[in-house]
Amino acid sequence: MPRWDPRAEERLRAAALELFVEHGYENATVAQITERAGLTRRTFSRYFTDKRDVLFAGSEQLPGIVADAVRRADPALPPFQALLAAVVDTGGLFADLVPHAAQRRAIIASSPELQERERTKLAAVTEALTGALRERGATASTAKLLAQVGVAIFQTAFERWIDQPERTDIAALVHEAATELATSLAPVAGLATPPEQP
Amino acid sequence: MPRWDPRAEERLRAAALELFVEHGYENATVAQITERAGLTRRTFSRYFTDKRDVLFAGSEQLPGIVADAVRRADPALPPFQALLAAVVDTGGLFADLVPHAAQRRAIIASSPELQERERTKLAAVTEALTGALRERGATASTAKLLAQVGVAIFQTAFERWIDQPERTDIAALVHEAATELATSLAPVAGLATPPEQP
Repeated sequence: MPRWDPRAEERLRAAALELFVEHGYENATVAQITERAGLTRRTFSRYFTDKRDVLFAGSEQLPGIVADAVRRADPALPPFQALLAAVVDTGGLFADLVPHAAQRRAIIASSPELQERERTKLAAVTEALTGALRERGATASTAKLLAQVGVAIFQTAFERWIDQPERTDIAALVHEAATELATSLAPVAGLATPPEQP
Repeated sequence: MPRWDPRAEERLRAAALELFVEHGYENATVAQITERAGLTRRTFSRYFTDKRDVLFAGSEQLPGIVADAVRRADPALPPFQALLAAVVDTGGLFADLVPHAAQRRAIIASSPELQERERTKLAAVTEALTGALRERGATASTAKLLAQVGVAIFQTAFERWIDQPERTDIAALVHEAATELATSLAPVAGLATPPEQP
């Protein structure tokens, strides 16, 4: 019987991701995961409801967390800037996931069911952000547009983080994606683009 | 036996949407739909594979259509402007759907299964747009970001069209949403916003 191990959750996650990659998500079992991690089914159940939960643990909390971050942002900020501040704020919470995120992304890409689950998760985040932006004075239509774009910026920043794990400054990654988008959009709205950096 | 009716598809769609609203999407049957439309099951099958297809007819073609519109856009346009031109181009095809779109939206909002289907449809459009933007020289990461934002702009424009059916100029609606977004993003990137219109 293994002693209490503060790294049990992490060991279970690592074992699960390895097995999903080796055998395919559909074929890997919780019994295999606990065996590889050298832990019991009971320990597994302390952290995860089932194998899918290894990939989506914490998803239920995410909409509330990001919406609260929008609410906490400086009241003087206009809606979109409050949203970006919230994205940066929340993005830091994902640092622990970065080492496994490339594996996770590949596993999700391999399964239509998991892709659907991922889209459902992001839709719930978008809806919560829409609500929080409305509280800051945006109309329903604008709030939804900004929330969708905020999620897209976060996804872009996070994917770049996964691809370049040495870039740990999520604020810089979010700012980079937002600036890139702003620059692409500027001509459409007749906005002046800044002069090229020398 | 009814004669050939050039408006059969339209009558079936109208009957189906009415029934989905009255009885709920889950409860309405194809038999009820054909009965209300005064048409046969065989005629129904000529236009739709099943009742879900009434809400998603043409979805399979949509990714190819919008991606081709990006490819056809003026080669001199940078990726995001080519994308917006394609969105405007394709948006015109939806004019026939506007009269039913508010009903359709309410039906989809009532069913998690249909919401999932709608998200899957939009994800396929986003993926096709990403591919077409890569062909125009955008990196994978930027192409995906711009595609997501292009879809969000289209959704915003289309929702406003549904809410104000008298605004039939989809180009103006797309431009309005894009400009709104550009203006929200501008301060993040240090871009100058244009002076307020007098």
